[in-house]
This record gives sequence, C-alpha cells and structure tokens, in this order.
Amino acid sequence: MTLPIASVPNGTVSSAKGFSAGGVFAGIKTPGPGKLDIGLLVSDQPCTVAGTFSQNSIVSPTVTLDRERVGVDKRVRAVIVNSGCANTAVGEHGLLDAKEMTEIAAEHLGIDVEQTLVSSTGVIGVEIPMALMREFIPKIEVAEDGGGDFANAILTTDRRTKEIAVSFDVDGVTHTVGGVSKGSGMIHPNMATMLAYVTTDANVDPAFLQATLSAAVKLSFNQIDVDGDQSTNDTVLLLANGAAGGAEISGGDDASTAFSEAVHQVCEHLAIEIARDGEGSTTLIEVTVEGAHSDDDALKASRECASSLLVKTAVYGRDPNWGRIFMAIGKSEIPLDESKIDTFVNDIQIVADGKGISYNIQSVVSALGGDVVRLRVALNVGDGYGRAWGCDLTEEYVVFNSAYTT
Amino acid sequence: MTLPIASVPNGTVSSAKGFSAGGVFAGIKTPGPGKLDIGLLVSDQPCTVAGTFSQNSIVSPTVTLDRERVGVDKRVRAVIVNSGCANTAVGEHGLLDAKEMTEIAAEHLGIDVEQTLVSSTGVIGVEIPMALMREFIPKIEVAEDGGGDFANAILTTDRRTKEIAVSFDVDGVTHTVGGVSKGSGMIHPNMATMLAYVTTDANVDPAFLQATLSAAVKLSFNQIDVDGDQSTNDTVLLLANGAAGGAEISGGDDASTAFSEAVHQVCEHLAIEIARDGEGSTTLIEVTVEGAHSDDDALKASRECASSLLVKTAVYGRDPNWGRIFMAIGKSEIPLDESKIDTFVNDIQIVADGKGISYNIQSVVSALGGDVVRLRVALNVGDGYGRAWGCDLTEEYVVFNSAYTT
Repeated sequence: MTLPIASVPNGTVSSAKGFSAGGVFAGIKTPGPGKLDIGLLVSDQPCTVAGTFSQNSIVSPTVTLDRERVGVDKRVRAVIVNSGCANTAVGEHGLLDAKEMTEIAAEHLGIDVEQTLVSSTGVIGVEIPMALMREFIPKIEVAEDGGGDFANAILTTDRRTKEIAVSFDVDGVTHTVGGVSKGSGMIHPNMATMLAYVTTDANVDPAFLQATLSAAVKLSFNQIDVDGDQSTNDTVLLLANGAAGGAEISGGDDASTAFSEAVHQVCEHLAIEIARDGEGSTTLIEVTVEGAHSDDDALKASRECASSLLVKTAVYGRDPNWGRIFMAIGKSEIPLDESKIDTFVNDIQIVADGKGISYNIQSVVSALGGDVVRLRVALNVGDGYGRAWGCDLTEEYVVFNSAYTT
Repeated sequence: MTLPIASVPNGTVSSAKGFSAGGVFAGIKTPGPGKLDIGLLVSDQPCTVAGTFSQNSIVSPTVTLDRERVGVDKRVRAVIVNSGCANTAVGEHGLLDAKEMTEIAAEHLGIDVEQTLVSSTGVIGVEIPMALMREFIPKIEVAEDGGGDFANAILTTDRRTKEIAVSFDVDGVTHTVGGVSKGSGMIHPNMATMLAYVTTDANVDPAFLQATLSAAVKLSFNQIDVDGDQSTNDTVLLLANGAAGGAEISGGDDASTAFSEAVHQVCEHLAIEIARDGEGSTTLIEVTVEGAHSDDDALKASRECASSLLVKTAVYGRDPNWGRIFMAIGKSEIPLDESKIDTFVNDIQIVADGKGISYNIQSVVSALGGDVVRLRVALNVGDGYGRAWGCDLTEEYVVFNSAYTT
C-alpha cells in the first residue's frame, strides 16, 4: 500500500518535530535589509545522520570535519553554517577554525562538540573571521519557527530562499521531512557552493538513512550539473531524530517506501529551486530522457543536455534548434539508435524517428519563452528514464561573473 | 640524435610534395567576399591514412563513411569537404548523400571512390543540397598552391583560416608535414565542429601513422575542450603519400622521432588556433599543470581548468581569483596535496604552498588583459606535465549564440 505524502504549508527545515533553527547577522557579508550570515540548526535529541560531500580534490576543512562526524555509528545534534567565506584553501588554520566554530556552537547549545557539524560558503582563499564567530554564534536564538532565518543565513548571491516540508502518516503517527538549500546553480564571483540540509522526525536506521539520501541525491542534486564546476564545499546532510515517536524505519515496508519518497520529493524540490535560481537565468530547463537502455543512461544523457551551453543559449534565444539537443544527448556517449529518436518541447513534437518534422514554429518559440521549458527526448530503445534540470545562459551571467575585478 | 624541425613559410595543407588542393563557392553558405564552401584535397599517389573521430553517440554519416575507409589496410587519395551543412540527423539519405559526394569527387579526379573521404560541417538536421554538390564539385580546380583555398572553404563562423607546415631532413631528404583546421573553439549557432587535415610526403607505415596521430591528438585537439560540447562531425585525418622519396618511417629511429614531433607541432598549432578563435573571445588561455603524479593527471587537470566557466569569466574580468583555479583543478578529482600547490599568472606567483600570497595586483590584472594568459599550477607531488588551451567567455558569446532565432 502506498502511503500518501502531503505538502506542509510554509514548510521549513525546522518543520519536523524536535528541530529548531535560527540566524544572526555578523558582518561577514555586506549588510542589507534582513540579511543574515550565520545559521544554526539543532535537534532536541541526537539524530542518526547521513551525508554526501563534494568529490573535488580540494575540499573545505568543514567538509573534512563533517566527513569524520557523519557515519552509521555517529549521532548529531546541530549544524552551524556561515555564508560569505568558504574557509577553503587557507592552510592549516582552516581545520582549526572549522573545529572552533563547532566548539562555540556546542558550548552555546550545551551539547557535545562531536555531535556538531559545520558548513561554510563564500570566498575561497580568505581566512574566516573567527572574532565574529566568537561574538555572534552565542547570540543566535533558535526556535521551532526559525527555519526561515536559517534559510536566509546560508544564502550567498541566491535571489531567494529555498525551503520545503512534506509529511506522511504511519499508523496514526505523522512523520515530517523538511529541508533547505542554497546555491544559485550557476557561477558566482567567488562562490558556487551547493548546501542542503534535510531533517526528519522519523526514527530511521542509520544505514537505511544513508542509502535513502544517496539514492535521492543521485536523482536530484546530482542532476543539476548546471555549469560543470564543482564546489570545494558541496554538502548535503540528512538528520533523523525520531521525535515523531514512530517505529524504526529500516527498509522493506510501506513506511520506508513513504520515507524514501518524501526525502526524494524534498531533495528534488530543493535541487530544482537551485537550478531555477541560476545566475542571470530567466528560464528553468527540465530535460527528460525516456526509453533509454537503462535509467543510468537516461540520467547521464539528460544531465549532458541540461548542462550544455549550446542548449542553454538556444533556450535563451527561443531557438527550437534540435540539432543542439541531439549533439548534447549524444555527447553522453550512451548507446542509442538515431533513427528512433523523438523529441518534444513542452509536449510539442519537433523530431520524429530521428528527423525534424514540420511543426508550428511560433508555438515552439512561445514555449521556449516560458518560465519553465520542458525538453523531452524519447530514445525508444528501452525503459530507462531520467530527468535533469538546468537554466538558460544569458549575457547577465557573463556580466555578473566577469564584473568582479580586484 | 634529434633532427631539427623547421617552420615552412606560408605553410599549408598542400605544402607537402604531391598534394594539391582547391575550393569553390557553391552557395551553401551565405555569399561574401572571397567565401568558399566546398574544398578538395588530393594526393597524386595513394596515401597511408590515420584518423580520429567524434565519440558522440550520434555522428554524421560522413564520419561513418570515413571510419570504413580509414585503416591500416586502406589507402586514400582525396578528401572532399563542405561547410554550411553538417549532413547529420537527416535519416537514411545522409549516408547516401555522403557516398555520392565521394563519387562525384572521385569521378572528377579520376580516382577510386573507396580512396575518397568526406567531411561536412554546418547546420545539423538539414539535408545537404546535392544539386549544388553535383554542379560545383566538378568545377573545383586543385593546385599545389591551393591549400589556402581549401583552408578557406572549410570554415564556418571562424574569424580566420588555420594553417601551418613544418619540415625536417633525413639523410638529405626533406620531409614536410602540413595541416589545416577549422572550428572556433566555442559554440556556434548550429555548428561546433572541429575538422583538421594533416598531410605529409613522408613514407609512413600505417600502424605507426595511426599511433603518431593518436598521440598527437591526445596532447592537442583533445586538450581544447573549450565548451564541453562534442560535435557529431569532429574529424582529424593524417595522410602520408611518401612523395618525398625517403625511407619508410615506422618507429624506433631518429626519423620517426622527428616525424612524430613534426605531427605534434602541427596538431598543437592547429588546436591552439581553434581555441584562440573561440566565439566572442578576446584572450587565449593556456593552462599548464606540472608536478602531478602522472602526465594523464596533469592533462586532465589542465583541461578542467581551461574549460571552466569560472576561470573563463575570471580571465575576461581580469580577476586574479585563484580560488576558481583551485576549484577547477580539484574538479578533475586527481590526487594532490593542497598545501603544496603553487600558482602563477604569466610567471607572476600568486599562490605558494596552497595559500594566497601578497603580490602586486595591478601587474596580474595587466597580465590578464593580454592576448595570451598563461596560468601555471605546480602541484609539486610528482613529474606529471600537461597543457590545455581555452579562451575567455564574454557577453559577445552569449549574444552570438542566442541571437539566432528561427
């Protein structure tokens, strides 16, 4: 039996029971109305924890530290996050400073430092202003309705906060999964980091928690490869505190299926919001590849298409140039049969059996001007299915990313 | 003993003995002063032949046909090339048309059709105008000094032709290697194809010829991944006709070493010219990675850096933002030790031991404004060495690639 999953109105990362959050403005970023730059997320009881991190050869010491403190035998209470400074490529001081950030937060909350995680996002190569950390972290007041402040505090040049929560009932017990992310999907002057935090009051076996997160990240955050550049600080964390009071979720039953689907929905929403907020972008591009030999083939091909500069500029120019789509799909080097490919823009077919057909051009040009453009490529050689998201590439993007001159 | 390699003044693809070339304007492209759109390259005797082709899942039938006609047991006399239409994704007609192009050229030259290769570059998804092929290919007059016309005929939106020749002497016999390429390194409205043809009058064993070309392509054309988009039509061919009258070159002696180096020099020049001619670009970016664990690591890391949009926009903005260089190098996921990295812009050091140092910012900003920017990253963990080339990313690029609206 499939358990229905409901949206939680005004859901945030602190919507799940037992989670509180808050933020403060310390002056790491330039001031602005309502601006915050340190966020704190805390659970009133220890959480099982799962994480996925940047695969870059150079990572922030915050990633190094979190990797040590995340695992099936670890428990976590809190996450402290600053924006405006990445604490990356600063020498040995970086790890000392990351540790001290967790010490300050742990002392402030009265919890174990080993159960405290940390993230930083912002300029690479600049030491983190620890004096501000020491002064302002203890001033953060966390509250059950503080998820919005946390969402605000982790932003860099994002145009808006990215939050969601969903819930499902198991034997009369409501389980909630909430989440928050930051990242504007494309390049920033000094920061391209993607951060996301997902919380749940479900009681989840740690190994199942990690498997669930890894599966969800594969279909969401890993499918928004919008500029091919991978940050040194990318982090996704999933914390489960069991505060809902339900039975343990460990796979193999309806509750586990519902939990996995809820985590997937939250991650997908948070990932799409990052792609939608791409620097200088005007349009979200959703690419669906269906009928591939495998899901992995479809995921790969859709990702290549969504991240192709040729496709991005074609969408920006409202150019139904399906040759670019073919090139980008083929660039994935997956097996396919060119003569079987059908292609659609917002459900309007423009290619049949591998060849362009005579379609109403104006209707496709109009479709390409919408807030969301859906490109669908049917390979018709199997059952593999995958989606990916990107955004268009505009002059504004280049202006923004080159205008910053030392 | 290393044999010296000399530059051939005004060298072209027909500089090597026994090669002739020519071009004609057939009206596939829009007319313009001096514009040509079909080129023909021919050797007066059969050539051993080597080739490398696009790895895209979707390739032009010209690539399919050339793959059949290139191999250690094959001989080749001529190559017919058109610009303005890619002859790709047009259904079964594509292969028939590609074959007919070689038939027309072979009949015109009085040679074997199986010894005739073909390339097309231009719009994908549009059938090639065979009526123009039938009318104009027979009008092409080839000549020993026709290399320039061939170079002109294969251009799409390139801003200039790309040609070179070098020579070396073995026992009093002068051997020449010439070449031509097209491609502007970044995205074009409908065409992103990279084509290159290298010719030599050396007498070269076919297996050694292929090994030499593959090695040269690895260090040249494969290191200018300027936008991550791989054309359906990419082709590099190397033809050796033995007209110089020298002994066979098959590896293991000074003549073979000189030949390999000559092919490498020609390929590197032709590849760099493509990167320099990148759409909307103002600056050639050369990235050198040294001190990696292996050459392959260094090649991979330099390529990631040269193709990073973060690095491209930083150079355009004259921003000595070495955090972006770190991110891009690390994105290659090669093993390295962050604390050992030194980084230089045009030989001015900006990072030592993984940390930014206090350098004269104005001198680096000035360096970033030059025609060529050299980024050098010393990893200091081994002897691995590699270089890659790209160009800056400008608003002009986005304008050009999005302005084309159906």
